[in-house]
Amino acid sequence: MDKQTRLLALDWGTTSLRAYRLGDQAQPLECRELPWGIMKLPTGNGGREEAFRQAFFAACEGWLSTTTRHEIIACGMIGSAQGWKEAAYLHCPTSLTELAGQLCQVAISPTVRLSIIPGLAIYGSDPEVMRGEETQIFGILSEDPNATGEHIIGMPGTHSKWALTQRDSVSEFHTFMTGEVYEALRSHTILGVTMQPAQETDWQAFDDGVATAMRQADTGLLSTLFSTRTRLLAGQLSAQQQPDYLSGLLIGHEFIGLRRTLLAKRQTPITLTGNPLLCARYQRAFQQVGGTQPISYSAQATVTGLWQIALRAGLL
Amino acid sequence: MDKQTRLLALDWGTTSLRAYRLGDQAQPLECRELPWGIMKLPTGNGGREEAFRQAFFAACEGWLSTTTRHEIIACGMIGSAQGWKEAAYLHCPTSLTELAGQLCQVAISPTVRLSIIPGLAIYGSDPEVMRGEETQIFGILSEDPNATGEHIIGMPGTHSKWALTQRDSVSEFHTFMTGEVYEALRSHTILGVTMQPAQETDWQAFDDGVATAMRQADTGLLSTLFSTRTRLLAGQLSAQQQPDYLSGLLIGHEFIGLRRTLLAKRQTPITLTGNPLLCARYQRAFQQVGGTQPISYSAQATVTGLWQIALRAGLL
Repeated sequence: MDKQTRLLALDWGTTSLRAYRLGDQAQPLECRELPWGIMKLPTGNGGREEAFRQAFFAACEGWLSTTTRHEIIACGMIGSAQGWKEAAYLHCPTSLTELAGQLCQVAISPTVRLSIIPGLAIYGSDPEVMRGEETQIFGILSEDPNATGEHIIGMPGTHSKWALTQRDSVSEFHTFMTGEVYEALRSHTILGVTMQPAQETDWQAFDDGVATAMRQADTGLLSTLFSTRTRLLAGQLSAQQQPDYLSGLLIGHEFIGLRRTLLAKRQTPITLTGNPLLCARYQRAFQQVGGTQPISYSAQATVTGLWQIALRAGLL
Repeated sequence: MDKQTRLLALDWGTTSLRAYRLGDQAQPLECRELPWGIMKLPTGNGGREEAFRQAFFAACEGWLSTTTRHEIIACGMIGSAQGWKEAAYLHCPTSLTELAGQLCQVAISPTVRLSIIPGLAIYGSDPEVMRGEETQIFGILSEDPNATGEHIIGMPGTHSKWALTQRDSVSEFHTFMTGEVYEALRSHTILGVTMQPAQETDWQAFDDGVATAMRQADTGLLSTLFSTRTRLLAGQLSAQQQPDYLSGLLIGHEFIGLRRTLLAKRQTPITLTGNPLLCARYQRAFQQVGGTQPISYSAQATVTGLWQIALRAGLL
């Protein structure tokens, strides 16, 4: 391993594989993105196990020496039942120390070992699961090690995750399928038929969507969705505005759900992490309707989390 | 026209064309279903106008004589901007008499005239539209001509419509995109990936979906949807149960929206009309959680409505 390299870390999801070579201060020295998520592995003659190996060695090419022991850490769907080796979910509430004590190891060669971070789960009548987001959460918590109270962490995306943390542990979390529902509605319902892509974000249309969700909170999403069409028919919305209106509508409904549950009666600080353009939409929607909670944004939460978990697990 | 025939009536929608030959007492003597909805017209050399004529004459083949004047009535998307001739929406509240006075005529030949029933609309910041369902509504109202108070009419389907009526007029209505959202989620999201078709309706799974919606009403649909997946992962739901669970979840959320708006503080009788299997799902969900409102079911609402509107318009 290059002398500068302190840790190799993988963020291995369903559709992509990101590999990081990190230096002494957790700083990324090199970053690679490969299209080999666990559902899109390279195809060859060796079966699934061989495909994982092939993707792994491609991601780490030139980063491994044959004379050194290598500890590599990974988070995401690689630890699922469809992954390389299943890392069983940890039940919430759980802390960084508990998580770091439950890594699931794969011996890739006599000198190379992969440690997979487990996901988190809540059981009972309304079960919840996450894989990968737990690493982002502990990354964010480590950025403010003196925090003593509650913290809410929002991770918008295909499946948005919202977690409530207490000091260094995750108490509860909720999933909203907002991103995936948006894509399905846009590509496979009458709402998308008339839509035209816009040159840039139409914030007025987005705000109108948020406002409709708030005004019609009681009628609910299944009904307010149809306004994406009727407002076009009524000349209140153009075909170019429909995509951002629908985006605002869905994010507005997600906010309503959060306000009635996780955010209820709390003035807990919120940190968003993920795609910065998407986070900007959430920040705007929350500031438009959400009151006075401070909202900040954090980049690099995954890398920081991978580092912190490796550190706590004694891999560094 | 055959001596027995009193009225030819068409229910001409987006994907299909139903033609009815009705006798003296509005009874259907003959019924045809053709695949020529306005978005699936027969293709030929004559353009769209010719395609409408071709579909029309196929639907009425053998029912028209050349020596008689024929008045034919039609409802549905045939009166939309993409239809044969646009029948402008009537604004609610509106009555049977007002509707029958606004039919939109197409002179098909010197002896054949088509009268298209307009749809209904609500304007303002939350616009609503319907086409075809207004005919079902007036069909149901005419079945109980002595009704003096409020009546709620539910028309489950791709886009469920719920109307509030007062005596013989429609006061307001709401659309829920439940059927189309179900199809999009099932065919184009992770929820559908694991689903297996069931041999018959799994009412326990359906009831569980309704119960989840009720229990998690505040979190909202975007979040509860994910339980279709997590309950599978947790072993609480099988792949065969997932479709009915999701169906119950969506109908449950539709009910929550109605209970907070149209049904709020009302003990108005409810009549359902449409696909009987789908109506049975709604009836079950509403009885499970909805309290004490009487719920009845009406078949043939469209045919009765076409007849009543033709009668009021003086076409009979």
